[in-house]
Amino acid sequence: MAQQQPDLAPDDALVGKPLSALSTPQPVIDEARLAANIDRVQSYMDGIGKRFRPHIKTHKIPALARQQEAAGALGINCQKITEAEVFADAGFQDILITFNILGSDKLEALGALNDRISDLKVVADSETTLRGLSEAFAGHARPLQVLVECDTGGGRCGVQSPAQAVSLAEVIVAAPGLVFSGLLTYPRAHGETETEAFFAEALAALADKGIDCPIRSNGGTPSLFDAHKVPSATEHRAGTYIYSDRAMARAGHGTLQDCAMHILATVVSRPTDTRAVIDAGSKALTSDLLGFQDFGHVVEVPDAVITGLSEEHGVLDLSNVSPDARPQIGDRIRIIPNHTCVVSNLFDRMVFHEDGLITRVLPVAARGRVW
Amino acid sequence: MAQQQPDLAPDDALVGKPLSALSTPQPVIDEARLAANIDRVQSYMDGIGKRFRPHIKTHKIPALARQQEAAGALGINCQKITEAEVFADAGFQDILITFNILGSDKLEALGALNDRISDLKVVADSETTLRGLSEAFAGHARPLQVLVECDTGGGRCGVQSPAQAVSLAEVIVAAPGLVFSGLLTYPRAHGETETEAFFAEALAALADKGIDCPIRSNGGTPSLFDAHKVPSATEHRAGTYIYSDRAMARAGHGTLQDCAMHILATVVSRPTDTRAVIDAGSKALTSDLLGFQDFGHVVEVPDAVITGLSEEHGVLDLSNVSPDARPQIGDRIRIIPNHTCVVSNLFDRMVFHEDGLITRVLPVAARGRVW
Repeated sequence: MAQQQPDLAPDDALVGKPLSALSTPQPVIDEARLAANIDRVQSYMDGIGKRFRPHIKTHKIPALARQQEAAGALGINCQKITEAEVFADAGFQDILITFNILGSDKLEALGALNDRISDLKVVADSETTLRGLSEAFAGHARPLQVLVECDTGGGRCGVQSPAQAVSLAEVIVAAPGLVFSGLLTYPRAHGETETEAFFAEALAALADKGIDCPIRSNGGTPSLFDAHKVPSATEHRAGTYIYSDRAMARAGHGTLQDCAMHILATVVSRPTDTRAVIDAGSKALTSDLLGFQDFGHVVEVPDAVITGLSEEHGVLDLSNVSPDARPQIGDRIRIIPNHTCVVSNLFDRMVFHEDGLITRVLPVAARGRVW
Repeated sequence: MAQQQPDLAPDDALVGKPLSALSTPQPVIDEARLAANIDRVQSYMDGIGKRFRPHIKTHKIPALARQQEAAGALGINCQKITEAEVFADAGFQDILITFNILGSDKLEALGALNDRISDLKVVADSETTLRGLSEAFAGHARPLQVLVECDTGGGRCGVQSPAQAVSLAEVIVAAPGLVFSGLLTYPRAHGETETEAFFAEALAALADKGIDCPIRSNGGTPSLFDAHKVPSATEHRAGTYIYSDRAMARAGHGTLQDCAMHILATVVSRPTDTRAVIDAGSKALTSDLLGFQDFGHVVEVPDAVITGLSEEHGVLDLSNVSPDARPQIGDRIRIIPNHTCVVSNLFDRMVFHEDGLITRVLPVAARGRVW
């Protein structure tokens, strides 16, 4: 059951009201910035001739994926089967799950999903994963499309060399129930040179063996606007760009003014001249630091430092804020989070606004879908 | 709507099955450790003659609060009004909300809550908060009980001196609609000496003014077993002890063997000899470090280091693990989280087991209740 604020009528009753009608803490999304982020990235991808596949992990809301598709995105990216199920329910057909799927429970769910959407794809980076996929799909009318995940510098999953990628591609080609669809990487930021080198070498080796490799999928928001430096890639995946956040702005992907998500919070205590306490803690902002030393950027008081979070309190150090600019008890502030994707996953609904007037309230339909 | 795993029948169908029936990632609770943690703390509190008030933030499940009450706990502690509403719905009458309540929306909800349970209490640490509470409750049949929150070293909310505490107590005594019920602190760990000094001085000053101070509420799990070093306190509040976690064990509150929560995860990739990737990331474990350099303790592979989390992946460094003990793709591991309370808040249901057989599956009823 979607959780309601204690005070408010059903979500529809909020539309048209000012943001001050919301109880805090509550993340809100600026419609104009959201639309601009969608358009800017899609225009860039269109300009360089790459397909763009949004990762829905950031918003987990079908209506936003439809906005991304309306702008020109082709297909979506999910991380987990249960996320994909939510988007399949909403009518999406081209879904790429960028995860090694293991275990009979998940393989069964994956089979059911493949039966009901037309263009499901997954990744694999080991023979163990491929063996499970093949056993599960050998009897299916529709084979499963599989991409080989490559570690081109990101240091997470993926085969370690183009030779290994080719070897796994050959396993897929020979495996009942599977179709080899291409290569995929989740690269490090600004890793375009090594990604291109990896893809180009693997592509040449695949061509030598007569193996078609239709999709070469690159990804990530931080250096998204350098996607043209990976000519071998046919598509790019990104999630965070749609809301953007403090970490993306630091990485050079837009500025703080492009961040569409703010977390509304209220100052609830001013124990000392230099300390303020707000009603947003780690259960609203999360503890993601992503290299920062503090837990978010305070829009109204940029020199305030969110030095610590407990679960429902955030502690602000106001030492660097001039005394007359220090927020008082009851004041509302807006926080740009370090990492927007994990904030979405804490709230059952997301509130959107245009110049401070609420435009829509949407359930975060795939929140908590970690399986 | 509570989210189901893709594979499984309704939660009841899980009871009696082994933990291997669960899709990962999934936190699970060991019933024996849970019961032992409840009993150990309650016995200690009974022995030193203090009332014990469990904080429900850790589990957010009414059935567990009933277990705590059955063991001897008197009343519960919530952090937010919407949490308290869930527990009021479940029949709890003595609820202390340890938060400065501000804003007409929340004051209205607080009024409704005070009308339907017999023993609601809140805290305040400023005249601003008290003014709002008094205006909201002046016309109510049942006045609101208010404790003054004191900062005895925790560095979060609270008045900074016993003199300020007495001053706010006088404001409460004079305020229409409010009743002064006592003092409260959320102290630093091992801060018993300063807490006792603060409470004792404030109590003496209140007595001088003829102000009764029935409740002196101390709190926290880390140095809970030193609660007897604060003789002025009449009650102790704690939440984390019920599940316990890696941070509590490090603080000396029990050991890793007392941690009732494990997060089940599956190894999904072994890109290199020394790297494993699991299907639990920051959306399952959270990024809470609490002073650690890594993101949890791996029970089966204690020398593995969870060096990094992305949202749905955890990266383990196996360099310190002997080659034959390194987990393989498909292996399941159990992780003791750094901080259990934030993990609860990510999952819609919690699974309990006895020696690996599932005993019950409960909705995390107050998950996401941050208002």
